[in-house]
Order: sequence, then structure tokens, then C-alpha cells
Amino acid sequence: MDYSSFEDTIVAPATVPGTGAITVIRLSGPKALDIAGNIVKCKSRSIEASDANSIRYGTVTSEDGSVVDEVLVSVFKAPHSYTGEDSVEISCHASSYVASEILRLLCDSGARVAEPGEFTRRAFVNGKMDLAQAEAVADVISSSSSASLRVAMNQLRGGFSTELKDIRERLLEIASLLELELDFSEEDVEFADRAKLSELLDGVIKHITSLASSFRQGNAIRNGVPVAIVGAVNAGKSTLLNSLIGDDRAIVSDIPGTTRDTVEEAITVDGILFRFIDTAGLRESDSEIEKIGISRSLKKLAEASVVLAVLDSTVSVEINETIINDIVSKINPEEQKLIVLFNKVDIITPNRTVTLLNKDVSSSNSKVVKLYISAKDGFGLELLKNELVLSQKDLTLDSDQTIVTNFRHYEALCKAASALEKVRSSIALGLTPDLLAEDLRDALTHLGTITGEVAPDEVLGQIFGRFCIGK
Amino acid sequence: MDYSSFEDTIVAPATVPGTGAITVIRLSGPKALDIAGNIVKCKSRSIEASDANSIRYGTVTSEDGSVVDEVLVSVFKAPHSYTGEDSVEISCHASSYVASEILRLLCDSGARVAEPGEFTRRAFVNGKMDLAQAEAVADVISSSSSASLRVAMNQLRGGFSTELKDIRERLLEIASLLELELDFSEEDVEFADRAKLSELLDGVIKHITSLASSFRQGNAIRNGVPVAIVGAVNAGKSTLLNSLIGDDRAIVSDIPGTTRDTVEEAITVDGILFRFIDTAGLRESDSEIEKIGISRSLKKLAEASVVLAVLDSTVSVEINETIINDIVSKINPEEQKLIVLFNKVDIITPNRTVTLLNKDVSSSNSKVVKLYISAKDGFGLELLKNELVLSQKDLTLDSDQTIVTNFRHYEALCKAASALEKVRSSIALGLTPDLLAEDLRDALTHLGTITGEVAPDEVLGQIFGRFCIGK
Repeated sequence: MDYSSFEDTIVAPATVPGTGAITVIRLSGPKALDIAGNIVKCKSRSIEASDANSIRYGTVTSEDGSVVDEVLVSVFKAPHSYTGEDSVEISCHASSYVASEILRLLCDSGARVAEPGEFTRRAFVNGKMDLAQAEAVADVISSSSSASLRVAMNQLRGGFSTELKDIRERLLEIASLLELELDFSEEDVEFADRAKLSELLDGVIKHITSLASSFRQGNAIRNGVPVAIVGAVNAGKSTLLNSLIGDDRAIVSDIPGTTRDTVEEAITVDGILFRFIDTAGLRESDSEIEKIGISRSLKKLAEASVVLAVLDSTVSVEINETIINDIVSKINPEEQKLIVLFNKVDIITPNRTVTLLNKDVSSSNSKVVKLYISAKDGFGLELLKNELVLSQKDLTLDSDQTIVTNFRHYEALCKAASALEKVRSSIALGLTPDLLAEDLRDALTHLGTITGEVAPDEVLGQIFGRFCIGK
Repeated sequence: MDYSSFEDTIVAPATVPGTGAITVIRLSGPKALDIAGNIVKCKSRSIEASDANSIRYGTVTSEDGSVVDEVLVSVFKAPHSYTGEDSVEISCHASSYVASEILRLLCDSGARVAEPGEFTRRAFVNGKMDLAQAEAVADVISSSSSASLRVAMNQLRGGFSTELKDIRERLLEIASLLELELDFSEEDVEFADRAKLSELLDGVIKHITSLASSFRQGNAIRNGVPVAIVGAVNAGKSTLLNSLIGDDRAIVSDIPGTTRDTVEEAITVDGILFRFIDTAGLRESDSEIEKIGISRSLKKLAEASVVLAVLDSTVSVEINETIINDIVSKINPEEQKLIVLFNKVDIITPNRTVTLLNKDVSSSNSKVVKLYISAKDGFGLELLKNELVLSQKDLTLDSDQTIVTNFRHYEALCKAASALEKVRSSIALGLTPDLLAEDLRDALTHLGTITGEVAPDEVLGQIFGRFCIGK
């Protein structure tokens, strides 16, 4: 491994200056120790002469001899550092002014301000971690629940990469069997046992498909379970959303530096993050603008894991049946859970004898759950939350299970699976090994993009550009 | 020095979790290494067995065996740490969730969450720094200009403390001379040479007074030069303020964790921070509410280092003269700089031939500066900024000059000086040494409160309570 693949030394704060008690400034590259030693003076040995993994106390002075700060310097030597390069971390007082002075002095001594994600990118290029692990760094930082941390940490520690390596090896075995056949193809000998090939292939496809299908779960863990609130206009959808959010409003949107879209309306129930999506009321309309709103509602409906159909209990049964039938026609019962909410029970039965209704409902075995609620005063909402948690019971994880949370990985897995499906049908059709080999190589390439064996510069730019500076 | 004066081990984040790339969690106390070793597992030696000033790589696991994070642990051993105690700094990924999990695990293992400033308070109690140095830590963190950093850093590095120690020693010399006399007082012998005493005393009083008088400058450096904008109603005071602030609005108010009042309207000109205070228009009024506003304006006028008197050039000379005389009667020409601004020149001379007027003004030798301006369109404001900078030319510092920036220190110095003045007059009056000695002890006590030799618990609580958690 060539740890001197980068010539310049990069610098950035790893914590936000101006907040907290200390600021940590990170420096990495072939001249990290020299440059740090240039601006930090220690009593006995210089920074350059320090042992690896040691901490030194020193004074930063500016050009005019005035003391900028007293700092601690952590010294790391290649390859035993985050980036795999010589690195230094300077802990200074958390003043924006002090941090900017130290950054300026380091740059004047030959360092360059790092681009977003450049430290982790160097760690990847220097072979300290593969691409899936590098992406997990951002996921660990943005994790906001034990489930999301567990999944990200498994990926960071190489759990996903190990599984991919195993799949890759099995595919290479298949490929070598096929290529052997290819080499001798002129002699028209069919070396590879096609039945054995198919069996191997079936195993790999099953594994990849199972990883890909964990993405719905992974996405729910990372970004929250998408819950669409649909129904006729004035059924009380927005009131329901506000009542559900209430004081439980999730704090996930407070965490900066995540690459996800802002989760505006989310709550955590029993450790599971639910992301509520209020939709435009569904109704026939001639208004072009309203039509756009409704088509957006339908799109969100399709993306949701749970659909809350809000009905106005004060209107006629016929109207509500039409609405429900309409919604049912638009959802996929295999993948989407439907909960029908009869709202406004405070109006129709102000004395609350309706409590019994929900008991009847929950004892029913129908796949579609029906609840009587009053979004206005909160009646029935605890039962609704229970139903939401029940609908996601598969989100409780084994500690080492690999869950795909990244859309890029999901896409690559799907493409790999579909290339392998082609291989399978080619085998079934008795096609020549050279055709099979090409699809097999495609599958290997797609899998390679996940861990970064195959990673064009623009992909790397996209991935690391989303990181914060200093990581 | 007893480094085991505290029994419990405290913990807090030293950086703000959820921002940046890493979060640093600080642990200090007799069990810091044990507790960290409890939750962080390293490959070879344990944290407890690590060398001082070394960095270890390890894994934090939670009770159920799942990995919370991979971390770096910096190990410090008493007395060579910030607090003087065994200490550990854990660098984890900057996820709020990860940080809170690590904090929880540390607390479950026997640590306690630190109170604000508790680390620095321990550093003070353990003799790592005196009280003036401890207070400088907060000043360094909140410093926002090279001048404020220089003053705070000098104080942190013990410059102020050394001067106080010198003063203290001179006072102890005087005290011992006096007490010798006191011991033999029954024999009616006057040992101490009163003339020599007075000379020593004069020197000390001069030194203390000069330190105390640096406070106006120190306060200006730390909090900005207070500039009051006064004048009649509708003279254009608020327009002037807005024009001055413009794009130059100082960013000091963006820095959280400072103990100062928020500086709402401030700009930096030539490295000097000016804090503008808009005041209610000065006029005779029967309205009780307006009277309160005017009395506040007068108070701000008294506190300002520079007074900008804004006049409306479109009203009669007589009216403006009355206003100017009124303002002049309220300021102290020794300590306050008056700048008279004839505003609205855009109305009286729309063709700008008035430019010449300002040239005349700046060449005049009058102590009161007069400028013709248009707050509305910015005419003359550059000249005004020059005058502001000129008025503060004593803010450029020698690098090692001690400047008092803390009101607590200023008060203590004033009280010490006034006690010593009493000693001086007692000597002049030929009073008995026991009376002199008491005032001398008072002076020593007041000086002792600055560095903390004399520091009641409630004073410490006030000082450290203003620190952020983790410092």
C-alpha cells in the first residue's frame, strides 16, 4: 500500500469552532508533522521528533511573537492514522478567532484547507476502509437511534463488506468455471457442470436479493418509516398530523450535516422513527394546480409503508366507502399497511360511548385495521400509535444482521441481481459461455461499485462532497 | 499539592455533539482511567495500563454487546493534565446519539456529569492555575479579535498573576515592617521608617491604580468601545446607526457561550470593536414613559467612551446650540470624546459642495470634532470611522502589557487602592500601627480575591457557573 499517494497536507477543524470548550483541528499528509512543528513549540522534543500516538503540550505563536494559544497536539504516524497518512490533531480553546488564526498559520506553513470529506476520501484511497465503510462514517454521525447506529456501525466495521466479499468470491468461482469452458470452447467441451453452476447462481441471487430487499427496512431505520396521511378534503388530516406530532416532535431535524432531506414531521414511538407525510385531499378536480397536488399525493402514497386513510365520520357511509375503495385501489397490500381512521367521533358521539367501538375493532382479525378517533382532542391516538409500532415489528434487529440503508448500494444490488438473472436464463437457454461471462462480469462490476473496487472519480466526488468539512 | 482532593470522577462533552466530524468527551477524577477502561476495550493493553500522554484506539460496546463506536482515547495522568487529576479524552464520531450513549455508559460505570466550569474549577482548586487564569480561559474562548485574545492570553499565561504577586510581596514587606512595630508597641518604639513606608506605599498605590485604570481600555477591548448616539428626536440617530452597521455588522453576537451581554449593534473598524448604543431622543417631556427613556439615555451617555451628538442641519442654529450645550454639560471631557455630527446635508446642499466643509473641520485643532454627514446616503461616514479609530489610539497594545478586562478584578483593585489610601492618610495623621495594619490586611484580602487566595464558595460558584459545560 502506497501511503504517500497524496502530496499535499490538508487541514480542517474536526469540531465546530466557537462552540464548546475545545476545538480540534485536524492535519493530514506527508508534511503534517513538519507543518505542525512549525507553529507549535514544545518544551523538550519537537513535534517532528514525537513518538507515534503521543500527546504533546505546546504553544502556538504568531509571526509577531504573540501567543495565539496553548494547545495539545496528538501525533499519529502513517499508516496508523485515520487517513493512513502522518496526521496531527491540535486541541485548542474553542474560540473562532483562535481556530481561524491557527488555520491561517498552518496554511501559511504549507497546508491546504481540506475539501468536504477529504480526510475520509484519503482513508479510502489509502486502503484504510472500503467505500461502503467510508459511507458508513456519515451514517454513524447522523445516526439518531440505536437501530440506525447499529446498522451504520455494522457497515463501518465491515460487516456489509465481508458479505459482499463472500458473494464476490462465489461469483468469481462461477466465472472461473465459465472461463475455463470458454478457453476450451473451440474443442466444444462443456467443462462446467451447468446444474452445479445454476445451483451456485441461485444461492448468490438469493443472497443479493435478500440484501436488496432489506433496503425498505434500512431506509425506514435511517430515514424513518414513511406514513402517508390521505383522505378527502376536510376529513381532518392536518389536525391529525398536528395532534400526532404534538410534544413528541422528533429532534432528528436538529442534527446538521446529515445528507438526508430534512425530516420535518417525525416522531419516535417505541424507538421507531415515523415520518408523517401530509397529502393534499383526494378528490376529482378540474383545477390544474389541484391536479398536480393530487398526483403528488398519489406518489407519496406509493412510497409510504403505512397509509392512514382519514374519513369524516359525519358524512354518509356511501361517500366514505367510495373514498376507501379509491385508496385501496391505489395501494399494494403486500408491502403497504392500511389503517382506516374514522375521525370526528367527538361530533357524532360527544359522550364517548364510542370507546367500545375501538375494542371491537382491535379484536377483529381483518387485515385492514379500523379505528375510531378524534384528531381534534386526541381520542384513539394511543391505539393508533400501537398499531403503527405493530406494523413495523420487523424493524427489531439481530445485532449483526446486514441491512442496506444506502440507495446507491440498493441500486447496485438490484443491477447485479438482474445481471445474474440474465446469466440464469442464458444457462436455461443453453447459450454459449461467452455470453454468460459478460453478464457475470457486469454483476461483479455492480457489486464492485459498492465497496469501491470500481469507482469512477465523479462517484467519489458525489459521495465525499456530501460529507462535512473536517471528516 | 493534594491531587486527590475530589473523590468523584466527572464527565462532559468538551465539544458540541451533533456538529462537526468528531465529538470529544472529557473525563476527570481519581477513577477516570478505570471508568474509561470499563467501556472502551483496546486490543493490547487496557486503558488503565496505558502510558501517560498516549493515545489508544478502542471499541465502545454497550451492555448488550453491540458496538456503540470506535474511538480514540487520550490518557493523561495526575498531575500532568488540565485538571491536575487523572483524565481521559474520548474522541468519538460526532453523532448526538453516540455521544449520549457513551455519556450514559460512563455514568453507569461510576462517573457523574460535570457542572458548568467544573473541570476548570478543579484545575484551580488543584493549583494548576489561579483564579485570574481560570477566568481568562472563558475570555480566551470568547475572544473575537487579536487585541482581546492577546489580553486574555497574557492573563491565562499568568502575566496579571505575576504582577499581583509582586504587589502582594511589596505589601507584605510593608505589613511586616508595621507588625514588627506593633509587637514592640508597648515599648513605644517606632521601628518602621514612616518615610520609607510612605514611599513603598506610594509605589504600590500607583501600580494598583494604573492596573485599575486599564479597565476602561480592557473593557473596550473585550466588549467593544461603547459609542452613544444622542441628539434631538428626528435628528437621524437610528438612520445613522443603520448606515454605520450596514454590511459591517460585527459577528461577535454569533459566538455562543460568552458571558457578556449580547452585542447587538457592533462593527469592527481597523481591528477595533465599536459597540453602538442608540438612545431615545433628548427633549423636555411630560410623559412619564418618555422620561424613563431619557434617563436611560443619560445613563448610557455616562457609560460611553465616545459620544456622537447628531444634529439636524435643517433646523435653526439656536436650537442646535441649545442641544449641544445640553449634551456637553452631561459628559466628562477628560474621559469621553465628543463628535458633533451635522446630519441631513443632503437636504441643505443637494449638490454636495459641502464636501469642503469636512476638510475645514478636520484641519481645525478644536478638541471637539465636527463633521457634516448624511446618514441617509452615507456621506461623511468614512471620515467619522477615521475619527472613531483615532479616538481609540491607546487601544493598540504592547504585547505583554497587563490590561484588566474583568469587572470583578477592577472592583477588587479599586477597593485595595482605597484601603491603601486610608493607610497613607493614617500614616500622615500619625495613627498607631494597629490601625494601619488593619487597612493593609484589607488591601491584601481584596487583591487575594483576584487570584483566588481568598475566594468564598459563592464567588467560585458565580465565576464557574458562567462557564460552559465541559470546560
